[in-house]
Amino acid sequence: MPRSIVTIDDLSNDELEQVFVIADDILARMADPARPYRIRGRAKLAEDQILSTLFFEPSTRTRFSFESAMERLGGGVISSPNSAATSAAKGESIADTVRVVENYADVIVMRHPAEGAARVAADYACVPVINAGDGSHEHPTQTLCDLYTLHKERGMKSLADFSGLNIVLYGDLKHGRTVHSLVFALARLRACIILVPVKGLELPEHVTRRLQRDYDCVAAMPEKPSPGRDLPVDMIYVTPKGPHQQTIYGFLDAPAELKNVLSDIHVFYVTRLQTERGTDASGRGAYQKIDNEFMKKKSYKDSRVMHPLPRVGELGYDLDDDPRGVYFKQAAYGVTVRMALLTWLLDLTKTGTPPAARECELPEYCHKDGIQCNNPACVTRLATEQQYIEKEFWIVEQKDSIVLRCMYCEYEYTIACVGRVSKREYSTDPAQLKVTPRNDRILFAQVQDAVNAGYTSSAESAALP
Amino acid sequence: MPRSIVTIDDLSNDELEQVFVIADDILARMADPARPYRIRGRAKLAEDQILSTLFFEPSTRTRFSFESAMERLGGGVISSPNSAATSAAKGESIADTVRVVENYADVIVMRHPAEGAARVAADYACVPVINAGDGSHEHPTQTLCDLYTLHKERGMKSLADFSGLNIVLYGDLKHGRTVHSLVFALARLRACIILVPVKGLELPEHVTRRLQRDYDCVAAMPEKPSPGRDLPVDMIYVTPKGPHQQTIYGFLDAPAELKNVLSDIHVFYVTRLQTERGTDASGRGAYQKIDNEFMKKKSYKDSRVMHPLPRVGELGYDLDDDPRGVYFKQAAYGVTVRMALLTWLLDLTKTGTPPAARECELPEYCHKDGIQCNNPACVTRLATEQQYIEKEFWIVEQKDSIVLRCMYCEYEYTIACVGRVSKREYSTDPAQLKVTPRNDRILFAQVQDAVNAGYTSSAESAALP
Amino acid sequence: MPRSIVTIDDLSNDELEQVFVIADDILARMADPARPYRIRGRAKLAEDQILSTLFFEPSTRTRFSFESAMERLGGGVISSPNSAATSAAKGESIADTVRVVENYADVIVMRHPAEGAARVAADYACVPVINAGDGSHEHPTQTLCDLYTLHKERGMKSLADFSGLNIVLYGDLKHGRTVHSLVFALARLRACIILVPVKGLELPEHVTRRLQRDYDCVAAMPEKPSPGRDLPVDMIYVTPKGPHQQTIYGFLDAPAELKNVLSDIHVFYVTRLQTERGTDASGRGAYQKIDNEFMKKKSYKDSRVMHPLPRVGELGYDLDDDPRGVYFKQAAYGVTVRMALLTWLLDLTKTGTPPAARECELPEYCHKDGIQCNNPACVTRLATEQQYIEKEFWIVEQKDSIVLRCMYCEYEYTIACVGRVSKREYSTDPAQLKVTPRNDRILFAQVQDAVNAGYTSSAESAALP
Repeated sequence: MPRSIVTIDDLSNDELEQVFVIADDILARMADPARPYRIRGRAKLAEDQILSTLFFEPSTRTRFSFESAMERLGGGVISSPNSAATSAAKGESIADTVRVVENYADVIVMRHPAEGAARVAADYACVPVINAGDGSHEHPTQTLCDLYTLHKERGMKSLADFSGLNIVLYGDLKHGRTVHSLVFALARLRACIILVPVKGLELPEHVTRRLQRDYDCVAAMPEKPSPGRDLPVDMIYVTPKGPHQQTIYGFLDAPAELKNVLSDIHVFYVTRLQTERGTDASGRGAYQKIDNEFMKKKSYKDSRVMHPLPRVGELGYDLDDDPRGVYFKQAAYGVTVRMALLTWLLDLTKTGTPPAARECELPEYCHKDGIQCNNPACVTRLATEQQYIEKEFWIVEQKDSIVLRCMYCEYEYTIACVGRVSKREYSTDPAQLKVTPRNDRILFAQVQDAVNAGYTSSAESAALP
Repeated sequence: MPRSIVTIDDLSNDELEQVFVIADDILARMADPARPYRIRGRAKLAEDQILSTLFFEPSTRTRFSFESAMERLGGGVISSPNSAATSAAKGESIADTVRVVENYADVIVMRHPAEGAARVAADYACVPVINAGDGSHEHPTQTLCDLYTLHKERGMKSLADFSGLNIVLYGDLKHGRTVHSLVFALARLRACIILVPVKGLELPEHVTRRLQRDYDCVAAMPEKPSPGRDLPVDMIYVTPKGPHQQTIYGFLDAPAELKNVLSDIHVFYVTRLQTERGTDASGRGAYQKIDNEFMKKKSYKDSRVMHPLPRVGELGYDLDDDPRGVYFKQAAYGVTVRMALLTWLLDLTKTGTPPAARECELPEYCHKDGIQCNNPACVTRLATEQQYIEKEFWIVEQKDSIVLRCMYCEYEYTIACVGRVSKREYSTDPAQLKVTPRNDRILFAQVQDAVNAGYTSSAESAALP
Repeated sequence: MPRSIVTIDDLSNDELEQVFVIADDILARMADPARPYRIRGRAKLAEDQILSTLFFEPSTRTRFSFESAMERLGGGVISSPNSAATSAAKGESIADTVRVVENYADVIVMRHPAEGAARVAADYACVPVINAGDGSHEHPTQTLCDLYTLHKERGMKSLADFSGLNIVLYGDLKHGRTVHSLVFALARLRACIILVPVKGLELPEHVTRRLQRDYDCVAAMPEKPSPGRDLPVDMIYVTPKGPHQQTIYGFLDAPAELKNVLSDIHVFYVTRLQTERGTDASGRGAYQKIDNEFMKKKSYKDSRVMHPLPRVGELGYDLDDDPRGVYFKQAAYGVTVRMALLTWLLDLTKTGTPPAARECELPEYCHKDGIQCNNPACVTRLATEQQYIEKEFWIVEQKDSIVLRCMYCEYEYTIACVGRVSKREYSTDPAQLKVTPRNDRILFAQVQDAVNAGYTSSAESAALP
């Protein structure tokens, strides 16, 4: 199986670096001399290749950036701006769709409203699948583009330079998939992440939990929040350089090095209200518009303003001619970085070793009864998909508590008790997970679920509170 | 005028063979070594050509298979996923549309909801038109793909090998255009066709009539239907090898060679309920799902399962990993065979003799009064087309009875009487057709129609019962 | 900034001639021998280029003609048949859309329902923008195609030959943007324009005003209208060869040379009812159909019939096989002329001097208060655009009266008074425009508007009636 790009985690740091090196090389050869962030001309690298876009939710911008990337590489494109009107309307499953389309193209770029849809596609296709957005879940090439823009616009030499970056994430941090992907990638690269959400649109708890658990991030505050401060910071996340620093970065008790983070903001990453993902449009009024007036503060003199676009009012038009406003360059870098990703994924430079699928090292859990993913937007909930998808989870935590992550939408669930099928008994002791044979275990989100399923409390369980 | 492909009958057996030879050659040069039914890379055969898709009914799958075929041949593509929203919405006729688009492309691939629409397009375009589905009428490249899959998956050396094929057609045999095209092609190639329709969705009478009249098929039964038999066969159609066998193959009285047909099924061709063509979805319950369980019977050990896809429940997912399930290969062969068809149709190998339009040898009938095609889905019934299309018929039978076939949708009509315009007389004697001068004759479906039009019974007519 | 083509006026006569020379050369090399108005094969001129179509209103025909032109030139295409469903639905402005798409393509072809939308796009894009229709405003490449068809089908040697052309514009002259563009271009090239509108669908007053003011056209009548005449001519517009002829061509008093214009019609340019632009469909009955019967008149023996298509009844099908009916050739020439335009605009032949943006020499007027464009279809009225577009005007007349033209939709407004902001005074004397400093002036459509805004009449104003 080939490598697919479903989440930004499908690329290791080394691989990210490889993609960036290819992107730099593409820019060196193909940049518009007048606008060196923009690609001109067409290479002949992908002449043997066909890219298919499969958009179950229309998006001219994202579709075009992929199609342009493939055209610039010299490849062919077959394009579906609105797949929802066809196969899906006839009740075809995602797996069937990709097993047909894999015969028509060498790489599939898919956008779908269901969360985890791209994972299903990647599981079944014999060609690489690139997730171009699956509901509120992930949009990894947007993140790639954001990281590459930071890399170029901050003059970084390598990914290691991200650890010196102070970046503000501003706006709707609750629904934006681009923000969630970006925040994980920034944490992985050890940037200092300053969250400035619009009130009520804070980063969801499941994201902050992962930041701390999976990326060793520490929540910190450089000083007590005060009403007069110009940036209403919600929280700062930093990754300690070494384990001994973990205890230093405590909430409301930050060391000297953090004190001045807010006076040295490198980047404002602004996002719009995701009204199409459920954000109440009335929140728009709460936005402090980022414009020339806002950016006048001396400490923002060398900052950059990014935005995944489209904007709808949170970003002033008066910034367009300001060299600090790099959001249109960001859109331009999207072509370069997608060209680089395709080059790497399809091994267009013929290194002979196209990247293979990555195996996740986490243990798996699957049982037709017991806990199910209850995210209503999860792809496993669609009638067309239920007939063949097993509801599988990764076990992401199994020490003090048991936490499962849906393999598709990546929602996480804390488990209340471990059941033993053969004995019809359950235990609330997390340690039981390891001693229960894999084929005999069943996990429940609530004790009541175990009781309802006819399980009784075991001795091990009774021993615990 | 160039050759167009409106129905599978637009290709003679010799031409089918030529297309298959080209397809074999394409596979030999361009197949994916890991999946030898799938094309990789791009040739430079069609570099001078542009293909246009014109889909008045959206279909990502069919459109993609053509566009991929053209891209794999190195040609250009201009694509219209939803033409219905544009020219058609402005009231443009099909003839006008193709006479514009013929200037933009070298071949037009059209899908349209009206039956016979592709014939109209082919009549007016100066470039080849390929029918990618016209209502419930025809979808000849699907049939081509089906035949080529049989050719490859049964290891056939030539078309002659079809005469040894026992193929079950299963499911909705009433509405599926793919099934009707396929059944005629199989009859032409002398395969043994075993009909297993879902109850109420039998092959329409006009199809079985044509099987017998045009392809010399004989309806037969290997044994009396019994409730316990696992395959509820509706009918078997065979083509006698010689004329003397006609009488041998009688209904309910089959010779020994047919007795065991059901224990040697080579292929199950499964189709879904065509709910978008008027099939009642409640029929779905009557389907016996074709899955691993069904295929366990020893006599199906070497069978193949085909399906034009998408499936919606009539085919189990557990067959996907079974080597007998070849439906995804079938989709893959669709690219190869369309590449071959384009190569042949556009003379991409520069033989110097691109195929010319074929003349039908049947006599024609046309009169502005008298019988009209009353198929409500016929293209001649559309307001936009009525202003220029004459309602023409082929005379397909003129011995014991007179049968007309609409030149567009191919519906057939039995004629009750032949009128002579100059005398305002009608006769119910079929022989009158031949003796009435072409310009003086008018045909009526019912005697009453002739009477209503002011015609009176002639002496010839009175002489008959 | 590169040259964009928003209106036909964006091409000077010299440039039109250059484009036609390129078109002739393309035909000489790439015409289908059997149909010499039609392009075959593909060149390699645009191999380094990508064209993007951005259609906010669907149109298969126009989109295809551009995409085919680019494919025939060997370039790449990224296509958006229905942009309205995407960025626009998210509330993105036109300026933002093009500043993203300019990074994906080397030329943008845009259709949009708002009048002036293409001007906005051209103002912001760093690549050429071609207007493929902006509401009822302009569709310059249709005009280019019409002119080139006239050039070829009338056997013209150069643009100078247009001055000998007698062309009837027939049908809905009120709403058709193709007619308005064409009429200006014909006037510029000094053709004799004979208007034959369907009753109630006459050329709008703003168009006839511009004809006379900007192109020195004179309205004339060769004879008194009489009920029995076969062509119900509304008006004839001619451009005097020299200034002394201005007085000769008076209404109802034309010189001998005009007397016989109606008996020497070279071209009938027929248009359909623009029902989608507000024309009442009931007007259809008033159309005299142009068909074989109509064209039987001896004086029409060598006429040509053109139509921008689609037709819906105003043009008989019986003309299709008549060599005088050149409307399908006209559609074919559309590919050639668009290939030529792209070649010229993108400097594909590498002359080294791609055309730069043209500066308009008219003086500008802009003030946030005072007169505003009140065309409800003007792009400046859209909520998404108002946040950044200034409502600017060209001052097209400033002698006896002051006339402003909206820079976007080109609607014109006569100004009633000139205000002086510093003094809060207004004057109805047009001469005040020149003596009022640019930064101090404000213009009002009505005196009452000035009064409402708190301005009082000045001495200069009082001096006039």
